[in-house]
Amino acid sequence: MHIFTRHLSKIYTQPVLQINLSKLVENYRMLSEIIYPATPSAVVKDDAYGLNAAEVAKVLYEKAECRNFWVAHAAEGEKIADIVPEANIFVLQGIGDDSLELFQKHQFVPVISSPEMLLYWKKHKIEGIKPVIHIETGLNRLGFRENDLKKLNHRDLQIFGMVMSHLACADEKDHFMNEHQLNNFRRVKQKYFPDLPASLSASDGAFLGEEFCCDMVRLGAAMYGINTAPYRPNQMKNIITLKAPVLQIADLPKGDFVGYSATYRAADNRKLAIVSIGYGDGVPRSLSNIGKVFFESGKKIREARILGRVSMDNIICDVTDIEDVKVGNFGYLIFDDYTLDDIARDAGTISYEILSRIGKNPRFKRKYCSL
Amino acid sequence: MHIFTRHLSKIYTQPVLQINLSKLVENYRMLSEIIYPATPSAVVKDDAYGLNAAEVAKVLYEKAECRNFWVAHAAEGEKIADIVPEANIFVLQGIGDDSLELFQKHQFVPVISSPEMLLYWKKHKIEGIKPVIHIETGLNRLGFRENDLKKLNHRDLQIFGMVMSHLACADEKDHFMNEHQLNNFRRVKQKYFPDLPASLSASDGAFLGEEFCCDMVRLGAAMYGINTAPYRPNQMKNIITLKAPVLQIADLPKGDFVGYSATYRAADNRKLAIVSIGYGDGVPRSLSNIGKVFFESGKKIREARILGRVSMDNIICDVTDIEDVKVGNFGYLIFDDYTLDDIARDAGTISYEILSRIGKNPRFKRKYCSL
Repeated sequence: MHIFTRHLSKIYTQPVLQINLSKLVENYRMLSEIIYPATPSAVVKDDAYGLNAAEVAKVLYEKAECRNFWVAHAAEGEKIADIVPEANIFVLQGIGDDSLELFQKHQFVPVISSPEMLLYWKKHKIEGIKPVIHIETGLNRLGFRENDLKKLNHRDLQIFGMVMSHLACADEKDHFMNEHQLNNFRRVKQKYFPDLPASLSASDGAFLGEEFCCDMVRLGAAMYGINTAPYRPNQMKNIITLKAPVLQIADLPKGDFVGYSATYRAADNRKLAIVSIGYGDGVPRSLSNIGKVFFESGKKIREARILGRVSMDNIICDVTDIEDVKVGNFGYLIFDDYTLDDIARDAGTISYEILSRIGKNPRFKRKYCSL
Repeated sequence: MHIFTRHLSKIYTQPVLQINLSKLVENYRMLSEIIYPATPSAVVKDDAYGLNAAEVAKVLYEKAECRNFWVAHAAEGEKIADIVPEANIFVLQGIGDDSLELFQKHQFVPVISSPEMLLYWKKHKIEGIKPVIHIETGLNRLGFRENDLKKLNHRDLQIFGMVMSHLACADEKDHFMNEHQLNNFRRVKQKYFPDLPASLSASDGAFLGEEFCCDMVRLGAAMYGINTAPYRPNQMKNIITLKAPVLQIADLPKGDFVGYSATYRAADNRKLAIVSIGYGDGVPRSLSNIGKVFFESGKKIREARILGRVSMDNIICDVTDIEDVKVGNFGYLIFDDYTLDDIARDAGTISYEILSRIGKNPRFKRKYCSL
């Protein structure tokens, strides 16, 4: 019977990343309701956090009537320009000598965050485009400080079509920075740009209340299923499943070591599953000896611990107590019951970093489920 | 004068990754000498650790006469198959239902590491191809255990063209595992595959002495400039430069916070440079409040500390003591004097993970310098 099973079993070697675009659209719609009457917009920078900006922008444009997209770089905007022809594409890192041509070609809207970039824009401005001005309100990252704004003359202030800022601590509901930044933003906007539409929040700010939503909210992380309001249960749906095949089942004798630098030693006899995924696929090496992989066992989902170091192409899992794991089965690294937020917590980082990193790997079999 | 400088300054927004293929070839040649008379081979899995397997394989094939390449997945082999027509392409994760067609089309050589995969091969074997057998010798990862080997009959043993294993602790010269694995490998090879060529070491094993080099060494990390023998100064040349433009220079007032979650607070007035790169470009978030960025200042290179959290698109650097940093200048994150090994140490991981992660990001301006 054992031999028979072996003969029948399939062999797979490649990890699989499934992206559920229907759930992404559901998340976008749910967020749009939460922020109503503010206008929703989609953040597809960093190649849509690695999920492929073209696929993500297409479904949001066609199925969710999204007409405002944010990218970090003009080169990212170029990937979606033809897919969202009637939409605004805002470029957060702004315009410069290395991107001017793309702005001219595609009519991107630059976000201008420094006096130097404003000078550049005045020299190279594009007919019909009104840039966004980025105001610094407490993050101390990009944006005009009030000293910079004071130096602008009346004509300078007329250049812009929208005013934005960005919150530092919006994932903590009661953090003092939220009110502090909101007040700064309101005061500066009122003083310099009273008539412009305003955007203060990304998807963490969306949950802080109507006053944080202003005219436009930049929906990113939450749309991708991340809980950006971790002080309460996630309202968003998980959109990705990451799984990888078991290449081998092997005994680990008592006293033996596992993986690079021999960081795990077996206190008794164990059973191992070698799973075909590693940090080369974006699984953080910080999950060494800590991370979990899940296997179907009968009708249950069972948890297996990662033993030893995560290596580039493989992880080694302890399946001693999971009897029916076989070569050709899949281990699950991210799915509805162990989400991006869960793996990020175990890896000691944030879901954004995990998603951004995993999504970019070219060696997955990548499957998009759509409406 | 200040205004004049501003008018003249260039604005850039996009990070730049330079890959020096000439130095890569130099490293490969140096390693080939060290391991002589063993045959060198090149590990270009994980898209050549993110550096683009097609570019790397091409230069090694054309300029260094490399005729043996290792990938993890058949899908990776496909990217180089036409570029290295006369070479062997070994596929470390082996063959299965999701890759069989690629093996048939390109005559890849599978590495077979389990009895199940051997059964699969016997059912689907490809004329003219002799697979590599992977023997487990102490890493407790992929590979035939001795119990598995005992079950093979004489005809099974004739199937293979090479025998390989992989070392767990080869970056520590005196680690007991090195001798332990070498002895295991010799004994098992002698018993089951006395006539086959053998490959035990990757580029860390290359420095452990002739007995570890056997017939073929799989050169990867060291070829990419990583010090795989950290118990002595690096003999390899750094091959990558990662730099990103300063988008803004700004004052940080005493008492202000920096970045997400307000993790840095200024004890006195500081000067900030906002640099256009972040974890979306592969800069580990674990460098938050720890990492370094380097700036040219006159004829010197000056070090600036990263303040606050690394965010997706930007990092914030303390340039209080570096007077002449301006918008449009570049900050260096990896270069000859602060290599992959240095940034990995600061980020709390290994150079392999940094390289594999950084190289894959599509939003760099990517420049290959060649011979």
